Amino acid sequence: MSPAGGRLPPYRAELPFTYAFGRFAVLEALTHRPDDVTAVLWHARLPDTERERLLAAAARAGVAARRDDATVARLRRKESVHCLAVVAKREERLAEAADHVALVRPSHPGNVGSAIRSLVAFGFGDLALVAPAVDAWGPYVVRASVGLRFAVRCQAFASLEAYRARYPRHAAYLFDAGGELELEEVEFRSPFTLLFGPEWQAPGAADAAVAAAPDPRSTVAPAPVSAPPRTVRIEQDNRVESLNLAISVSIAAYRASRARR
Amino acid sequence: MSPAGGRLPPYRAELPFTYAFGRFAVLEALTHRPDDVTAVLWHARLPDTERERLLAAAARAGVAARRDDATVARLRRKESVHCLAVVAKREERLAEAADHVALVRPSHPGNVGSAIRSLVAFGFGDLALVAPAVDAWGPYVVRASVGLRFAVRCQAFASLEAYRARYPRHAAYLFDAGGELELEEVEFRSPFTLLFGPEWQAPGAADAAVAAAPDPRSTVAPAPVSAPPRTVRIEQDNRVESLNLAISVSIAAYRASRARR
Repeated sequence: MSPAGGRLPPYRAELPFTYAFGRFAVLEALTHRPDDVTAVLWHARLPDTERERLLAAAARAGVAARRDDATVARLRRKESVHCLAVVAKREERLAEAADHVALVRPSHPGNVGSAIRSLVAFGFGDLALVAPAVDAWGPYVVRASVGLRFAVRCQAFASLEAYRARYPRHAAYLFDAGGELELEEVEFRSPFTLLFGPEWQAPGAADAAVAAAPDPRSTVAPAPVSAPPRTVRIEQDNRVESLNLAISVSIAAYRASRARR
Repeated sequence: MSPAGGRLPPYRAELPFTYAFGRFAVLEALTHRPDDVTAVLWHARLPDTERERLLAAAARAGVAARRDDATVARLRRKESVHCLAVVAKREERLAEAADHVALVRPSHPGNVGSAIRSLVAFGFGDLALVAPAVDAWGPYVVRASVGLRFAVRCQAFASLEAYRARYPRHAAYLFDAGGELELEEVEFRSPFTLLFGPEWQAPGAADAAVAAAPDPRSTVAPAPVSAPPRTVRIEQDNRVESLNLAISVSIAAYRASRARR
């Protein structure tokens, strides 16, 4: 997947592969996508015990690992990173029967990665990203997810309508500080989607996202009609305008994983 | 508080003041600590509407605001920051009757700041930091909290024993992946402490923190004896070794704020 014998370039969204930096991310890539890892590179400064664990994991996955100080040093963004994996991108499609999480216009790769880490913790494996969104393959997302990016399916959609038309059976729960339901009182009926609007939105700002959903009163019915989203709030002190996106997603996923029906 | 007429130095823990960078943090400092803000400085690139809001807030707090492009540019860490507040540190003591959160050896200022933001959201205003811990006044903590650092009391303790001896009435709930109780089944009895061990701990690693609590079987009773902590787990998929600290704290605080007795 990487240019045969060529020099590995800095990451760009257009490349057919991405990089997992650091031992945790490399190990997760080898665990979840053994067939997609095309190389593991390590730097002389990787401690012995970590290198042994890494080489064993690479051998189990049938992946070539080699020392390449210059490439690791050139591509890493932090000096504390002493290894990387080259991971081929693949086309991912959300599982039809699974519960989903959808992020509309997420702008911080760190938040998307942190959210993924929590989603995996609470049993969610399918993440929709509604454009314009961060590149779900970017190394910042991978690193913030501590490599659990490779344990989930991420699919990009041009609009919220496009996502909902594709998965019309999914009941959408739109999280918003002004939501009609309190999180604790919601019974989540599978299949469902936990839906989050743009970061930094003020209370009520999710109206725009709601408006983007198909209008159920429309006389010209679009192919599959999905029900309008219920809006859900995470009750909080009014001094805080909004929780951090990754934290809202984590709390919602924690609760939904316990209130699934 | 700042050197009279002198040049403001880069932040150091030894200084009697800290900096709040960016408009959100400056506004929170003016809201929660109007008497402690000694100056607000803005850069010419601060957009007009934001500057007007900032100047109005400074005037309400009786704080001098002045344009000082050079100082803002010299002290900021990101070019997107166009204002700062100089905020005097004060001695903070945790409220005796309030519920607390205690972080043992937290090492990432970003995690502490993010945790603070969520704690304020869920009605917690008292945070104990057990050494060695990050500097709770540091600008990274302030910024990650979006200025809500100024809405809470943070107190440093030399050890977990020192904290527990000081607040012996607080029932401690120690969060650990191998905890005996599931978060959902805990009834939190005030006053209580949500207690979190070192970051990146593996399941069971909280044993060290438990061991650091006074031994209730000890024949030589220390002055006030506090009950040993109950251990609590946040049920999750076993693929993830541990949630991010800020996210664990947020989920625990969310749940405890609803299950207080």
